[in-house]
Amino acid sequence: MTAAPHSPYRRSTALMTDHYELTMLQAALAEGSADRSCTFEAFTRRLPEGRRYGVVAGIGRVVEALHDFTFGDDELAQLAPILDEATLTYLSNYRFDGDIDAYPEGELFFAGSPILTVRGSFGSACILETLILSILNHDCAIASAAARMVSVAAGRRLIEMGSRRTHEESAVACARAAYLAGFGSTSNLEAGRRYGIPTGGTAAHSFTLLHDTEEAAFVAQIASLGVDTTLLVDTYDITQGIATAIKVAGTDLGAIRIDSGDLGVLARAARDQLDALGATKTKVVLSGDLDEYAIAALRSEPVDVYGVGTSVVTGSGAPTASMVYKLVEVDGRPVAKRSENKKSYGGRKSALRRYRDTGTATEEVVYLADGPAPESLANDKILPQPLLRAGKPVEGLPKLQDSRQHLAAALVSLPWAGLKLSRGEAAIPTTSLIP
Amino acid sequence: MTAAPHSPYRRSTALMTDHYELTMLQAALAEGSADRSCTFEAFTRRLPEGRRYGVVAGIGRVVEALHDFTFGDDELAQLAPILDEATLTYLSNYRFDGDIDAYPEGELFFAGSPILTVRGSFGSACILETLILSILNHDCAIASAAARMVSVAAGRRLIEMGSRRTHEESAVACARAAYLAGFGSTSNLEAGRRYGIPTGGTAAHSFTLLHDTEEAAFVAQIASLGVDTTLLVDTYDITQGIATAIKVAGTDLGAIRIDSGDLGVLARAARDQLDALGATKTKVVLSGDLDEYAIAALRSEPVDVYGVGTSVVTGSGAPTASMVYKLVEVDGRPVAKRSENKKSYGGRKSALRRYRDTGTATEEVVYLADGPAPESLANDKILPQPLLRAGKPVEGLPKLQDSRQHLAAALVSLPWAGLKLSRGEAAIPTTSLIP
Repeated sequence: MTAAPHSPYRRSTALMTDHYELTMLQAALAEGSADRSCTFEAFTRRLPEGRRYGVVAGIGRVVEALHDFTFGDDELAQLAPILDEATLTYLSNYRFDGDIDAYPEGELFFAGSPILTVRGSFGSACILETLILSILNHDCAIASAAARMVSVAAGRRLIEMGSRRTHEESAVACARAAYLAGFGSTSNLEAGRRYGIPTGGTAAHSFTLLHDTEEAAFVAQIASLGVDTTLLVDTYDITQGIATAIKVAGTDLGAIRIDSGDLGVLARAARDQLDALGATKTKVVLSGDLDEYAIAALRSEPVDVYGVGTSVVTGSGAPTASMVYKLVEVDGRPVAKRSENKKSYGGRKSALRRYRDTGTATEEVVYLADGPAPESLANDKILPQPLLRAGKPVEGLPKLQDSRQHLAAALVSLPWAGLKLSRGEAAIPTTSLIP
Repeated sequence: MTAAPHSPYRRSTALMTDHYELTMLQAALAEGSADRSCTFEAFTRRLPEGRRYGVVAGIGRVVEALHDFTFGDDELAQLAPILDEATLTYLSNYRFDGDIDAYPEGELFFAGSPILTVRGSFGSACILETLILSILNHDCAIASAAARMVSVAAGRRLIEMGSRRTHEESAVACARAAYLAGFGSTSNLEAGRRYGIPTGGTAAHSFTLLHDTEEAAFVAQIASLGVDTTLLVDTYDITQGIATAIKVAGTDLGAIRIDSGDLGVLARAARDQLDALGATKTKVVLSGDLDEYAIAALRSEPVDVYGVGTSVVTGSGAPTASMVYKLVEVDGRPVAKRSENKKSYGGRKSALRRYRDTGTATEEVVYLADGPAPESLANDKILPQPLLRAGKPVEGLPKLQDSRQHLAAALVSLPWAGLKLSRGEAAIPTTSLIP
């Protein structure tokens, strides 16, 4: 089955699924338990070591992916050797028709936050596990790392340029997650097409090397892209590169970029040199193995823009978000795996966040959705929001820009210590009212 | 433009590209340098810290992706606001028509190995940078980690089950890379469809929790999937779970799976219990946060199969392979960025590997393709092979199965110390004959 015209997927997403989900379905169909009413929850048992918060991302992509989660002739032919006739018939009619609630994209999460809750028959909900987790584990990991970079950049602009360091489709999702987290633009043109994210970039070292001299390269670039462009000045000698750049472009040059070396020292020297040459408005763009710690270290240096690649698309040490998708309720009965050291509570959960009157978050409270409600205080905010009802996306789901603003506001709501880069406790405590 | 019917891509891959590649192209077209004859090389400056070898993977995916690298109406419309008319016209006629050589998939690589070489006009070769690097950086990282797991598993079967821990499309490529590296199967159904990789899996904890008792779950699974299935026995109490499994399935049960706890102790206890129950042929499958070190630690335990997830799809600490794509030659002239601590040699390179008569590799030799050839010894093997000629894939490119066998043989060729898990030097030295 070919995916819908608007979709990023070439074909149905239904085979982006683990084999065992369909064999479980078959066994459940055979004995009649596949239509038991179930609740599955996606959550993480822990944040990556020392991280103080996570950022919810990928919810919009889950909606896209579920739209295309159908079994057409090609999918059924692929599955015919491994599934019985009854299961193939079930799948041929399958479209998720249950309810999903989720934290909005751009919301913060912590260990135990019930980020996404799927309610439906066992059969309909169990087979979504892999696809939902793939999207959440990837996108939350990237957005969580990106938000730390945005936070320490303290208003300076960030460009996501890590496409080459990750799978080509993952790269598009990384650009989306980084933009959600507050990056200003991406180098990835497909992300521009698919999500409307601003794209940018000017030239690489190869462009300079193509020419007999650096000056010839700069002349060619200015002639084609105008003086507002960014000239890459570190192919040979940076001081000479900057002098040549201003000689060629004049003092209205948009920016210079330095991609190697001791960036702090070089930024200061470049700024001084540009100012001395009269190019006081020419910006300094730094790139080259930057991560949140390097960005923090550059805080007092005269930098205008950071280009970030590898570290953001690999989650800066935490490339996956450790989300799990657990069955927590069957026909209204709480269920949980017995476990000595894993916290898996049975029962469908909800959560709220509490705030001071000043807007500072104080705690997250996780409670049973069908149990006694927690004490209601002024400023409480219920976190999960309806996402799908009877299989259909609810009206008015937030757009990427909304989610971006949501996160910017959420980060401001954290106590100051919660934004520290250093390893430590969660930014706010989570209170569990689960028995 | 819609991609070809066989393609994994929904649309043209041409926008899986960094913005700056097209602005460089525009500037080069405007001044007439876009048709200079160029060579770009993909290589890594270093292996991940302490790793002794890397595994080439993704070459077949590069061929797939380049097939769909064309600019149709939709791509051109997206680019119209940022590029001039001449560039758009160039792109509308674009199809890569140069030559590519590459190490075969499944070959080993080391720091400085010229893994992939693109020859063509500057314009035609420069715009492939991001897509080629995305594929190589991702797939080589996964295959390199997976090969270490295969190596220490010492013949025991490995199942790749990490789809949920990475981007949904990355998951398919991970399954491919892991299979290439010697994993026996994957949980990912789309990888089964796209690449013909064997898929497998039986049941998760949710299937047990769906039922009122573990026994009822096992009865349902056996009834539908037969006694050759794998029963997951650690939802409640493992000893009780194994007893129930054999009670329900009899001693012909295919396997039991344990997904949590101290796997070494549990494997031994499970084996003893199964044997005592007469289920001497029932296999023991272990999963749950396994990586190459955990697999090595289980070497003396009675384990039959390992299920590996997170660690393989995240490259086990090295999620990207640090490949770069550098312009090394323009109109026959070697070029290189000046750099104090990065090794970037100008000039087009080739490489050969030397072997003892016993088949053990002794060194890799990197040399200028147009320079004096290195001394020719018996058993030398030239590493780069033709991949595309005049833009067309050469006849008889290896299939995934061939590449899998290629790697199995290559790993056997390494000196014993080269297969050690511990951090250390490259398995064989690389001799550079570059001036």
